[in-house]
Amino acid sequence: MKSYQKELWFNVPTRRAFINITREVEQCLAESGIEEGLLLCNAMHITASVFINDDESGLHHDYEQWLERLAPHEPVNQYRHNGYEDNADAHLKRQIMGREVVVAVTGGKLHFGTWEQIFYGEFDGRRKKRVLVKIIGE
Amino acid sequence: MKSYQKELWFNVPTRRAFINITREVEQCLAESGIEEGLLLCNAMHITASVFINDDESGLHHDYEQWLERLAPHEPVNQYRHNGYEDNADAHLKRQIMGREVVVAVTGGKLHFGTWEQIFYGEFDGRRKKRVLVKIIGE
Amino acid sequence: MKSYQKELWFNVPTRRAFINITREVEQCLAESGIEEGLLLCNAMHITASVFINDDESGLHHDYEQWLERLAPHEPVNQYRHNGYEDNADAHLKRQIMGREVVVAVTGGKLHFGTWEQIFYGEFDGRRKKRVLVKIIGE
Repeated sequence: MKSYQKELWFNVPTRRAFINITREVEQCLAESGIEEGLLLCNAMHITASVFINDDESGLHHDYEQWLERLAPHEPVNQYRHNGYEDNADAHLKRQIMGREVVVAVTGGKLHFGTWEQIFYGEFDGRRKKRVLVKIIGE
Repeated sequence: MKSYQKELWFNVPTRRAFINITREVEQCLAESGIEEGLLLCNAMHITASVFINDDESGLHHDYEQWLERLAPHEPVNQYRHNGYEDNADAHLKRQIMGREVVVAVTGGKLHFGTWEQIFYGEFDGRRKKRVLVKIIGE
Repeated sequence: MKSYQKELWFNVPTRRAFINITREVEQCLAESGIEEGLLLCNAMHITASVFINDDESGLHHDYEQWLERLAPHEPVNQYRHNGYEDNADAHLKRQIMGREVVVAVTGGKLHFGTWEQIFYGEFDGRRKKRVLVKIIGE
């Protein structure tokens, strides 16, 4: 069994953003030399997500509006977590969008449907944060 | 290490449905010959889910109502994604229900609690769509 | 390839609670002797979650309030599932918080960011329930 891991760093200039990281993850898979196995990609921070969906700017706008409706940032004092911080909503939004994805590796490629793309979802940015890629297989 | 993969096809005649696919996934596991490992089962489309919950029609009705309340289909023009399409709500519903499940394989069986069953959650049906089963182990 | 599994039992005295199980999961990893691989930790019940977030009591209070707003327990007769039971809301809350986490194992440790901790999320307690830890690797 082979294993591989790499931490990818991001520094998003805004509080929230969705960033397509499919190419970086494919690069990790190529470096690993693994042909058959499972790939884990997860946020290493608890106010961020890794998820799979469509690379379409209208949809990303809809996600932003929808998450803000389900877990609004303001008023910040509605959340008990926000004593010294103002990011409680980011912890909530991340639960809806998820921490991680697990992707099949088949024939040395991400075994994806036509429109699947991997995104880093940032909900409390403006600082350096990490995503982990771990791959096991042969 | 052994690995196995199979794509399961579905053509749901309605826009939305929950389909119990536990038997199909167990059949994949039997075909794989894997006794100890991990099984990934994921939607290959970004308007569908694979999730684990109860096979109870009342609960499925509740999920349908609840998802419609959290991410309503109509009015379709509330979503910027809905320029040429009308399925933005399906992309949102899928994030709540999830893309994938990872299941332990122990002694050649799905290592499940009493009531765990695997479902395909369709949110934009009336066309052919795929689910992937990938298993690695020994 | 090595594999390991253990079922952890919980009996939460209240209907709902969040319990930090990181130490128990680390103990499983130590017992497994696995240095590189993937660890799956999942609820074996469909009214409970395993998720990763912050060990901060204010945030847990916010999660409790937020989940109750998105999927209220009462009135129990708003849910068709609640014929003989009153736990439909628990099946909904669990979908938001998730069934499982998959964690990378690197150098014999959980490959975690600074604040990542694993929680058992109970939404229908007052009885014995199980969490599964499965690890594969070398």
